[in-house]
Amino acid sequence: MSDTARLIGVGVGPGDPELLTLKAIRALRDADVVAHFAKAGRVSRARAIAAEHIRLNAIELPLLYPVTTEIPKSAPAYCNKIAAFYDDCAAAVAAHLDGRRSVAVLCEGDPLFYGSYMHLHVRLAARYQTEVIAGVTGISGCWSAIGAPIAQGNDVFTVLPGTLAEDELARRLADADAAAVMKLGRNLPKVRRAIERAGRLSRAMYVERGTMADAVVMRLADKTDDCAPYFATVLVAGWEHRP
Amino acid sequence: MSDTARLIGVGVGPGDPELLTLKAIRALRDADVVAHFAKAGRVSRARAIAAEHIRLNAIELPLLYPVTTEIPKSAPAYCNKIAAFYDDCAAAVAAHLDGRRSVAVLCEGDPLFYGSYMHLHVRLAARYQTEVIAGVTGISGCWSAIGAPIAQGNDVFTVLPGTLAEDELARRLADADAAAVMKLGRNLPKVRRAIERAGRLSRAMYVERGTMADAVVMRLADKTDDCAPYFATVLVAGWEHRP
Repeated sequence: MSDTARLIGVGVGPGDPELLTLKAIRALRDADVVAHFAKAGRVSRARAIAAEHIRLNAIELPLLYPVTTEIPKSAPAYCNKIAAFYDDCAAAVAAHLDGRRSVAVLCEGDPLFYGSYMHLHVRLAARYQTEVIAGVTGISGCWSAIGAPIAQGNDVFTVLPGTLAEDELARRLADADAAAVMKLGRNLPKVRRAIERAGRLSRAMYVERGTMADAVVMRLADKTDDCAPYFATVLVAGWEHRP
Repeated sequence: MSDTARLIGVGVGPGDPELLTLKAIRALRDADVVAHFAKAGRVSRARAIAAEHIRLNAIELPLLYPVTTEIPKSAPAYCNKIAAFYDDCAAAVAAHLDGRRSVAVLCEGDPLFYGSYMHLHVRLAARYQTEVIAGVTGISGCWSAIGAPIAQGNDVFTVLPGTLAEDELARRLADADAAAVMKLGRNLPKVRRAIERAGRLSRAMYVERGTMADAVVMRLADKTDDCAPYFATVLVAGWEHRP
């Protein structure tokens, strides 16, 4: 063991294990404890991506979400439950740090870009030595997989959660040169209507599991059903007339 | 040589050579030709990041920008000159592809996110087998280096070129939860005024060479001079009140 209390947020990239960085691999090789978020009963996607680099004698610390979608996120009950969950996770990580063990927290994509790791970071970074290892984001993985030049020159690029209201989505899509809409799931029909209202449907691509062997990629206009996983993404590339 | 004509856009990440991915390293190991953009008289930053992974017997193809800042970018002379330059670059790459050589084009950050590689991609991808290897973006490198939780949950995150007009910058900054402003250089005083007008100055961080040993990081409010390199970035983190 390293005898050094250190919290390390490790970005493992969008899904393809080859998109791990050398720095992430080194951090996994050195960490005493490897923590990963997952839904109860499921394997952590971040852990699956990084599996071959985790030491056999590492202590694993699964952090299992107590709620999924059965409580509306706007409900105070959800906020209280999820805040208590992150408090508990931070305490579990802190116990290892207080034992002078280094803790690598695996994060899909990039740790500080819409990731659960941030909830540990804001609770612990002021008290413990902390390092964040940037990763390839899920959206970079998606636009690379489809070869879509997403933004260039003076383009304004915007990331929008699909949870926003339709009017707000439509306004923001019309106001940006390029966009990624995340968190589709049950928001897909609303997102499709907003993209159409913003005049962006002809440029919109729908992507699931962009960097994986079982990726689904199609023009959004060609996706006639309303079924999308939560982590599906719509990309609107900004490239139009360039030198 | 690989005897396979293939164009590969290789993201080498934001600067730290350890932020290269396994996939980028494999592509460099296999490529017959390694191309890289640079200003005339300067070493390509992307090449410097990836240097230790370039094969000794690889053919190197430097692509040297003919103009820098002496012609305003809005001038037709600039557009014509830069378009002719990208046409010439595409022809030089195509000559190698026609000779059945694989060509890896090194890209700082991510190839399809505000990068020069895109100009080759749009000219060649329809004619040749093409692969894009996503990379860690420069802005991910910056917010990781300063440990700033940039965007979370339902945050709207926007990337703004510092070249936009002050009124537009101020409007867009006020309309987003989190933002990265790129291409500072001589735009810094205007960007600072826009951030102040948008009420974001207290949350704005100024970053130069975020992942390098000689990084410069400070609160934008504390940066009293107007000197910034073109590739400096201002980050406005979205994290406020979370569970």
